[in-house]
Parts: sequence; structure tokens; C-alpha cells
Amino acid sequence: MSLIVQKFGGTSVGSPDRINSVADRVCATTRSGHGVVAVVSAMGDTTDDLIQLAEAITPDPPAREMDMLLTAGERITMALLAMAISARGVEAMSLTGSQAGILTDGTHGAARIREIRGDRIQEGLARGKVVIVAGFQGVDPTSKEITTIGRGGSDATAVALAATLGADVCEIYTDVDGVFAADPRVVPAAVKLAEISYDEMLELSASGAGVLMTRAVEFGRRFNIPIHVRSSFNENAGTWVKETTMEQAIISGIAHDRSEAKLTVRGVPDKPGVAADLFEPLAEGGVNVDMIVQNIGHDGSTDISFTVPKAVVTHAAEVTTKVSHELGAQTVEVDENIGKVSLIGAGMKSHPGVAARVFRALAEAAINIEMISTSTIRISCIVRGDQVDEAVAALHREFQPPLVAEEVGA
Amino acid sequence: MSLIVQKFGGTSVGSPDRINSVADRVCATTRSGHGVVAVVSAMGDTTDDLIQLAEAITPDPPAREMDMLLTAGERITMALLAMAISARGVEAMSLTGSQAGILTDGTHGAARIREIRGDRIQEGLARGKVVIVAGFQGVDPTSKEITTIGRGGSDATAVALAATLGADVCEIYTDVDGVFAADPRVVPAAVKLAEISYDEMLELSASGAGVLMTRAVEFGRRFNIPIHVRSSFNENAGTWVKETTMEQAIISGIAHDRSEAKLTVRGVPDKPGVAADLFEPLAEGGVNVDMIVQNIGHDGSTDISFTVPKAVVTHAAEVTTKVSHELGAQTVEVDENIGKVSLIGAGMKSHPGVAARVFRALAEAAINIEMISTSTIRISCIVRGDQVDEAVAALHREFQPPLVAEEVGA
Repeated sequence: MSLIVQKFGGTSVGSPDRINSVADRVCATTRSGHGVVAVVSAMGDTTDDLIQLAEAITPDPPAREMDMLLTAGERITMALLAMAISARGVEAMSLTGSQAGILTDGTHGAARIREIRGDRIQEGLARGKVVIVAGFQGVDPTSKEITTIGRGGSDATAVALAATLGADVCEIYTDVDGVFAADPRVVPAAVKLAEISYDEMLELSASGAGVLMTRAVEFGRRFNIPIHVRSSFNENAGTWVKETTMEQAIISGIAHDRSEAKLTVRGVPDKPGVAADLFEPLAEGGVNVDMIVQNIGHDGSTDISFTVPKAVVTHAAEVTTKVSHELGAQTVEVDENIGKVSLIGAGMKSHPGVAARVFRALAEAAINIEMISTSTIRISCIVRGDQVDEAVAALHREFQPPLVAEEVGA
Repeated sequence: MSLIVQKFGGTSVGSPDRINSVADRVCATTRSGHGVVAVVSAMGDTTDDLIQLAEAITPDPPAREMDMLLTAGERITMALLAMAISARGVEAMSLTGSQAGILTDGTHGAARIREIRGDRIQEGLARGKVVIVAGFQGVDPTSKEITTIGRGGSDATAVALAATLGADVCEIYTDVDGVFAADPRVVPAAVKLAEISYDEMLELSASGAGVLMTRAVEFGRRFNIPIHVRSSFNENAGTWVKETTMEQAIISGIAHDRSEAKLTVRGVPDKPGVAADLFEPLAEGGVNVDMIVQNIGHDGSTDISFTVPKAVVTHAAEVTTKVSHELGAQTVEVDENIGKVSLIGAGMKSHPGVAARVFRALAEAAINIEMISTSTIRISCIVRGDQVDEAVAALHREFQPPLVAEEVGA
């Protein structure tokens, strides 16, 4: 008997009706002869509602108690789904992260999954039950404290469970039909990708495509678990994320991201160690710096620009201003009106000239590029925030992703 | 250092504001030099909301999943209260029933507390923390399944914890000022009792006074834990429930209960074993029969009346009709328009004539008594449902509880 892990996000379980639909799908899967482990998120806005309750109490709640609070969310969903499945005559059992043996480190709010001891899951499956596991949560076996693995962590829970249990596939059910070559809200003509490699999906996720969490893709790649991203509202095939794809596209997709802000330090003395002096305190302060550009210096001084999540920009600006002062730099500028546009494609490494086409396409659309960063399968540009949509459309016109090799005669 | 267990019910923690008030009170108690263990219920209507969600899924949810669902309620409260206390500079830590070592049997929905292993509570107290424990919930150590101990079970959790931890007092915070000699909504002149014995409180609770759960009083009596029932909305002293009270009242209070229905089996053959034949199947069907009256038989047949909770009256009527048929009885009548009025007082056992005064007082108010049941410290009468308030008022006029011995020269 094959085993399928099915993960249902907050929208998919947002009401009793939708939970009933999810139960129909799970039961149809068991009737096809598959074992099913279902991983669920909190219903709809539950997590946001709980956060609001906490904020009404204190602006700075202890992380341990925040985890205790938020884990109530999946607990509610998993019990309701177990009831809905049982009502259809299929035995079901819900398990918290702790009961399911999802062992994490002790970092409240952003714990890492260390190991999964799936004894109770295996036992339930052996008895022919559908096992429902709370996503997003685990337990630190040393302190016995309940942890959460960060927002979107239910995807990671699902893929890690699929790896541990030796599942044939991990299905991620969401409110869109799969992974698109560009955001359909920005580019209505964007097509759904039938397949995409782990590496490309990682770059897409990291570049702002919200459909699948980076950590889930990392688990999939490491343990070679095929991930099927699909809609919980229809029966259509979605997008398969897997090791090698049949059609190796040159360009797979375009992602965009408006969640970052740019900091520029002007008049930094141009001497060795300056970058380290600047970025070490930021790292120690927990600020995740994304893109960094250092201008070519002249007259012994230079400018350094970098991007950080908008959520921490105030904190980052404080740290940067303090360090800049010590370094003898002139000014620190903060710019929140930026956006990042990224072109992703594993094929671009063997197709020179892609970067030049990106720059030309943006120039022809009168879009100024403020920062550039590249990997072997990604080109990212920082542009004005109000030009992000235009930039995505321009790149989509230029490359028409997925752009496959045979179509260009390669 | 003394230890106080403080239990806060659903109304007392019904909103972030109220949780902040509870935190103020807990912190004031710690500042007075007491250790505090706080036991909390789910916020306001949370439990009812969760039950409604389950009912929207299925009319017959598995009890295991119902417990999984409902235990999310206290989890939310306890985390929020821990945040509120921490925000006041007092260290706090919340624990689920399972984490607090509340071990129960495996009866989902109505588990019994078997033992409390308070290691993590003691550890937290030793570190100077306020420990917050989820009421109403526990874990079956054999199956490792999460259980709930029935509605109102947070009171039982609190008193059992107080017994285990050797607390000096268990404070039950609620939305009324204490235990009243009669329901103030029915008798506005009813006074708050300063003290009441465990036995009398047991009779009051069992007779319909909702302020304190019977099981909590039983724990208090067994382990001799003084229980202080008081309002969470003011600083007034409430009612002390304890072993011997300073002023031993003849009559402590009047309780009433509209939650029962009456079944009457007419024409039962008057022979040995008939009552057993009737009530054994009801007991096996899980029906909790309260009062039973068997008329004096004539012509070889008799009538038997008894009361059961309205919630199970349909089921009870089915069982009774089936058995009556086998016994050769004539008819089964169901009457939901009844109410029970009870007079409670430990002093009545040494004061003959109390029962006669009850019957006279009701007769003078033109209230017909349909059934009577007595214990050494209680007299209960079944009357028409729409005469319950009048009956309570009549008994209050007659006895003016608390009626203490010296006032009557005893």
C-alpha cells in the first residue's frame, strides 16, 4: 500500500464546510487504497486572531507562551477534521506535533525540526486509520517545551513527515492551482508549471513566490520527496516539484517581492574590513540581510546598499546608524519604496546572455535597476516599488516562461 | 511561604481586559508573599463556540476528538494570562493538564482525576514563578490520550491541585460575590453566606446551585482544603466552604433546579423486584436517576415516579417504556414542566419539625408538592415548573436563611 501525505493550508480548512470537503478528499484517497497522513494548519484567520489577542495583552509576549497560544490553532482544525473523516465511516485520529513525535530544537517561534519519531503515526496507520497531524508545531525533547517552527511551517512539517514515513508523495493543498510562471494577479497570461526542479522552486520561494515555503522545498530536495502543489478546490493536477524535470526549462518563472527595504550607507571609508564591521552587528542583531551592493570607491570612500525585511527595518537602521558613526561614514538612507523582481531558470546557466536580455527588457520599459544580484539559476533586480508589476510584465513578455530548450533550438 | 491556588472561571477571563485584571490580582497576591498556582477555564463562550464548530461537522463526534478540540480553550487562556503576568514583571509559566501531571482515567468527556504528579508545577514554584494550569483537562497515562473532566471541571482541578500541593486555601473566582442563601435573581433579599460546611455545600451544589461543582466540594472535604468562593470583579470577601463553620446554621440556604423531568409509570404490578427491573436498565443506559417515589399500592398494582436530567429524558422514556411493557405496566408519562426546590441545613437534623414547616409554607402559597425526597440535611420537593420561583420565595420568607441556632434560642 502506498502512503500519501496531504497537507491542507489555512484557507483549505477555513470553515466547517471546507473541512468537510477536505474530509471527502481524504476519504476518496483512502478508498483508492492509499494510506493517508493529513497535516493541517490553523483555520483561516485563527493564527492572526490569536496574535491579536496576545497583542491586546502585551506588545512583547514571552516566546514560550506565544507558542503555547498559537498551537491551539492547529489543535482545533485537526480535531474537527478527525470528526469529519470519522463521520464518513473512515477511522481517523488526530495528533499534536508533540504526540506525533515532531522533535525540534528549543527556539520558540522559529524552531528547526531535528527528528521525527513517528511511532504513534505508524501505529495508527497500521490499524488502518487516517492520521491527522498538527502542522507548524513540535516539542523540544530536552526541555519538554512546546515549540512552533515559524509561519508556513506546516509545509515543512508535511514534507519532513513524508520523508520520515517513506511516503510516495507529499501533496500540498492550497488556494491556487499550483506554481505559476509569474503571479497571475500581475500577469494574467502566466501559465501554471507542470513541473519544476527543487533548485528552481527554492529560488522562486526565496524570491517571493508564496505558494511553497523554502524549508519545505529543502526537505524535499534532501530526501528526494516529490511534492505536488495543487488546489484544494478542484481535482486538477497541480505542479510537481521534483529532482529532475522532464522538460528542463531555460526559464521557469518570474517572482517578485515587496517585503524588503533598502538601506544605503554613504561615504564609507574604502578600506579592508569595513563590510565586516557593518554586517557583523546586523547578523548579531538577528537581521537577515538579503542583497548587498558596494559601489566602486573613489577618493577613499564608497557607498554600500543592502536590503532587509521591512518588518525589521527600524531595528536595522538603528544598528546601521550606530556602526556607520563608528566607521566615520556620512549618512544612512532608508528606502521602503522598492521591490525585487527575479527571473529563475536552471537552464540559464548554460545559456549566456540571459542577464543582458533582462537588463535590456527592463530598460525598454523605462525601469531603472537599482541593485543586481545573481546566482547560477537566478537574476534579481531591485526596482522602484511602483514599477514592480511593470517589471514582471516586461520580463514575462521577453521570456514567456516556461521557456523550454527545444523552443529556442538549444 | 504560603501557597494559594486561585481558579478563574470563563467569565473572569472573558476578554483581554479581564485577563489583565486577573493578572493584577495574581501579582498582588505574589507581592503579599504568597506562592500562586492559577487554574483557568476557557475564555467566555469559547467552549460553546468550539462545540458549535463540531456540531457543524457532525452530530456525533468521537469523544476523543471532542476532548482534543475543547482542550484548545484553556490553552489559549493560560498562555494569555502568562503573558499578562510576565508583562507585570512577575515570572509566569503556563502548563497544560498533561504537562501539569493531571492524570485521569480514560473516560473522554467525563474523566476522573486519579492522581496529580505536580513535578513541573513544584519546579516552577521553586523558581519563584507563578504557575498557570489549564483546568478541565488531563491525560490518561496508560493510553497517553488527552481527556477532559466534564463541564465545570476546572473547579475540581483547582481543589485537587490545592490538595496535592498542600495549598493553604483554594480561591474560586467567579462572577458572583459568593454562595447565597437563595438565588438572588429569585429572592433579591437573599444574603451571601460567610461560611458553609462541605456537607451543606455538597447538598446545595447537587440541588442546583451552580456556583461550585459537586466534585470540587468533594475534593475539598476529602482533603480538608478550605475553599473561598469569591468575585473576580471586586475585593469583597466571599463565602468560605470548610469543615466546621463558626456559626452552625440550622438552615443555610435554598436551591432550585429546573434541569430535570419527571417520568411516571402507572399500573406497575406491586411485587418484589419490580423497582430493580425498572431502574437497572436505566443505570445500564447511563441515565442518572435523581428522586424516586413509589406510591402505596392497591389492588396489586402501584405507580412509580422518578426524575432524570431533561437532557436524557427521550432516551430514558424509551428505556422505561420498553421495560414497562415487559413488566406489564399500563402507561409511561413524561412531564418536563417540573422544578425542584431544596432546603439545606446541617442544623435541621437536630431540629425536628423543619419538614412540616416546609410543607406548610408551600401549602400556604398554594403550591402543590408532587414528590418529596430528604436527607439528614436536605428536604427537596418537586413542584410545577412555573411555581419554582414562588416556592423559593415562600421558603425564604419562612426560614430567612442563614437561620442560625442562637436566633431561635437552640
